Amino acid sequence: MDTTHNKGKEPMEKIFVFDTTLRDGEQVPGACLNPREKLEIALQLARLQVDCIEAGFPISSPGDLSAVKAIAEKVKGPTIVALARAVREDIETAWEAIRKAEKPRIHVFLGTSDIHIQKKFGTDREKALERGIDALKFAKSLCPEVEYSTEDASRTDPEYLARVVEQVIAAGATVVNIPDTVGYAVPQQFGKLVAGLREKVSNIDQVVLSVHCHNDLGLATANTLAAIENGARQVECTVNGLGERAGNASLEEIAIAIRTRKDYFKFHTSVNSQEIMRTSHLVSRLMGMPVQANKAIVGANAFAHSSGIHQDGILKDRTTYEIIRPEDLGITEHAMILTARSGRHALKHKIGEKGYELNEEEFEAVYERFLSVADKKKRIYDEDLDIIVQDVIFAHLADTRLYSLESYKVSTGNGKTPEARVRLSREDVILEASSPGDGPIEAIFKAVDKIVGSFHKLEDFQVKAVTETKEALGIATVRVSREGFRALGRGSSTDILRASAKAYVEAINRIHHFLQHHSQGCGCNNKCAHQESPATHSAA
Amino acid sequence: MDTTHNKGKEPMEKIFVFDTTLRDGEQVPGACLNPREKLEIALQLARLQVDCIEAGFPISSPGDLSAVKAIAEKVKGPTIVALARAVREDIETAWEAIRKAEKPRIHVFLGTSDIHIQKKFGTDREKALERGIDALKFAKSLCPEVEYSTEDASRTDPEYLARVVEQVIAAGATVVNIPDTVGYAVPQQFGKLVAGLREKVSNIDQVVLSVHCHNDLGLATANTLAAIENGARQVECTVNGLGERAGNASLEEIAIAIRTRKDYFKFHTSVNSQEIMRTSHLVSRLMGMPVQANKAIVGANAFAHSSGIHQDGILKDRTTYEIIRPEDLGITEHAMILTARSGRHALKHKIGEKGYELNEEEFEAVYERFLSVADKKKRIYDEDLDIIVQDVIFAHLADTRLYSLESYKVSTGNGKTPEARVRLSREDVILEASSPGDGPIEAIFKAVDKIVGSFHKLEDFQVKAVTETKEALGIATVRVSREGFRALGRGSSTDILRASAKAYVEAINRIHHFLQHHSQGCGCNNKCAHQESPATHSAA
Repeated sequence: MDTTHNKGKEPMEKIFVFDTTLRDGEQVPGACLNPREKLEIALQLARLQVDCIEAGFPISSPGDLSAVKAIAEKVKGPTIVALARAVREDIETAWEAIRKAEKPRIHVFLGTSDIHIQKKFGTDREKALERGIDALKFAKSLCPEVEYSTEDASRTDPEYLARVVEQVIAAGATVVNIPDTVGYAVPQQFGKLVAGLREKVSNIDQVVLSVHCHNDLGLATANTLAAIENGARQVECTVNGLGERAGNASLEEIAIAIRTRKDYFKFHTSVNSQEIMRTSHLVSRLMGMPVQANKAIVGANAFAHSSGIHQDGILKDRTTYEIIRPEDLGITEHAMILTARSGRHALKHKIGEKGYELNEEEFEAVYERFLSVADKKKRIYDEDLDIIVQDVIFAHLADTRLYSLESYKVSTGNGKTPEARVRLSREDVILEASSPGDGPIEAIFKAVDKIVGSFHKLEDFQVKAVTETKEALGIATVRVSREGFRALGRGSSTDILRASAKAYVEAINRIHHFLQHHSQGCGCNNKCAHQESPATHSAA
Repeated sequence: MDTTHNKGKEPMEKIFVFDTTLRDGEQVPGACLNPREKLEIALQLARLQVDCIEAGFPISSPGDLSAVKAIAEKVKGPTIVALARAVREDIETAWEAIRKAEKPRIHVFLGTSDIHIQKKFGTDREKALERGIDALKFAKSLCPEVEYSTEDASRTDPEYLARVVEQVIAAGATVVNIPDTVGYAVPQQFGKLVAGLREKVSNIDQVVLSVHCHNDLGLATANTLAAIENGARQVECTVNGLGERAGNASLEEIAIAIRTRKDYFKFHTSVNSQEIMRTSHLVSRLMGMPVQANKAIVGANAFAHSSGIHQDGILKDRTTYEIIRPEDLGITEHAMILTARSGRHALKHKIGEKGYELNEEEFEAVYERFLSVADKKKRIYDEDLDIIVQDVIFAHLADTRLYSLESYKVSTGNGKTPEARVRLSREDVILEASSPGDGPIEAIFKAVDKIVGSFHKLEDFQVKAVTETKEALGIATVRVSREGFRALGRGSSTDILRASAKAYVEAINRIHHFLQHHSQGCGCNNKCAHQESPATHSAA
């Protein structure tokens, strides 16, 4: 794909891609991944050929610890990174999580701006530096690869920042990361900050210099590119630009900008661009975070030419209005792949081709669901199959499943109050209740609440058709909360009421699971209101 | 709000904000605004205090011509701009559209890159330049303010570009715009291009230099800011970054970056930041284009702090993780504003306060709908009221209304095939039909198709809750097509099946209207498949 040579002229230097979708990206309100979902995303990131996967922040919850452990053991190729504050316990837990990885790395962070040092830690620059060095040395005693992040670097006094960087390199850091934590930087100034470090820090050549940009002013991609022009060689980013607040620098924008403008940047990455769209869709669905149509690279309209003049130009010569070829991102026309008569073998083959690894029980569940969908919907497209597989492996076989939707009945219309009757099962017990509502959805959700015996607050509700036909699979995403705990549920069906009911029951199962196993953590990080837990997230 | 002085030190130069949401932004596939909706957006842009509103491309359809005319006559404050190719007929039509504006401007564009000149026009540089000059002089003979755009400037030979710019200034251009039409530019290089023009073009001080950036590589905001650092004084942009492909530079990102980093940029704009969120919501809803949660400035999560460490920091001092105050963008907590007992007077007052201008008939329809919603939903929030008002003024009183939804009935669940019975009215006639479907939505849509007597292809279907409660108003957005025509329909209700049915009927009414009045144009630009019409859109 990408070559390391620019038309056979000068060799192009490599930019290391550090994906933090599973750590910083997962700090999105309401995005709550379970360990199985995290593993599936990590496997996809390995197929995308990123260099590093920041898999989580193990001290934040036992669930996150076990998710990072699973990724470290099962995902081969990329370096597996675990985050830790400059605290001994954090670092020990991070090491416990990743020690079995092919290439483990501990990532320690500590604020360097006066605003963080004084207002957050209530200490001074020297004491903060000392604490950082101690932490780094301890991490290094456990793991040969150690990254150090100077949180809020873009608002840090550049002289102090240079001193911190020099000393952490002397203490053994192998990567030093310069985060624009609050998304305050502008490209030229941020580029100068990086160039300044390359000048002032005598031992800077001993490490890979990294940047981590946030998108509060819409400048994360530009700041990242300005940094590599000035000496940074690792870029921290997320799929779809997800992350705290306005998110992080977007992996796909950085990778494709470098690739499309290699005449200018003269760098390359190892990202397999053919996997970009699939990765984007997977992350969007599992995290319940839709990508807007006009998002660069991965938006639904990114390659749509609607105006007549553009269409005319494109027909005469594609380069008139197109600088990126959709095929290079793995974008294909809706490909009809299977029908009800395709059979077990064809389905298994297609699922393998798409990169899913299912056990027998999972495959059987997928097959059953495939037949039922194919029965209603003549053609099963690629996107439909993704939904079916994900629905089965992420929801239906999860160990969090207490209640299952058996059936529902709704009557509504003609001015009368909608009425729902819902039937759930809990192990061998069948539970049934009816409720009226202002609409069929409210009626269904209220009936479920009656059965479960507690009230859930609906925080968000969305339904979207997957493929473009009336017989589409609808995918419903709900976010509910109870007693301060929040959970995401997804469900799919050709019937949007059924999809919504399934999503609601899934979310409730997750909340129930969290409440039952609270001391164990839930595998998602801190979105499920683990505010009482001592260690919580950061976003360098 | 913004001051023209930087803490009383040096005076800050003004950057002119040129909004092209109604022209380039509307070139989004499936976004189809009718003239009333365009006017409502233009009025809101005036409240936002942009300097220029590019209202449309009048030659593209008689509907667009009349929409631009209405805006030119009714919107006071900003300059009203109409787009024209370098063609006499386009320019005459543009002038006809805007001649009654307080401050009219004709905007002529012509490609300057070899790829456009040779492959699109099949001509050479000299002939293209001559054509551009002739067009500009003709425009100038009609309108004192004339803007000239050098389409695909970022891929144009800089020497030729400088020559074009010099000659169009000599011929009378008052604004010269440098578009990055394909989103190919990178900030430093684009800044240099602008700086080069300031150096090379002898008469450059006689015009306002402008830029127009597209976001294909995620760099539109950064390229725009690099240009103003190098001498550009007008920025072309759109609300929510909407536009062809990955969209245009985002108005809110540029305005807020300049404001937040005035220590660095030393510029100001006249944008009233308090109107930013309201403008974003209005455009998103009317165009049926959801904004992703992690969109900078206007995304739902842009100011959400989910991680514990961030929350802890924010509580200690907001500046630790927050560089923009949500209040400054007009973001308020869900404010409960009205109940069923609020009465006619309070409702009228609130609607006026929100900036809507309704006639008596419209107000009565809003009041009626308000009562029916307030009856089901105890508290009416700000967002609910927006939906109610928009639903009434944009859909229910539109002259495109042929069919109305009278009622529907659905029975579904327990494994039996969902069945819908729908009743529509067409003037005095009541029409009724039943249909089964894979889900209740499909059943309803099929029943509507039966009544209308034609099949419609469902291109997109989405449902979203407006406020966060089970008794929320749901808003359904559908895009349907028939015989190559596409239309958007929206509907809202506390019942999502009813909302979906209303949206489907609205879309069908619009398609019917287009087919009936095709020779008249539809008021939207070219998305409704007016591919047979001679003049189609461009995107400078």
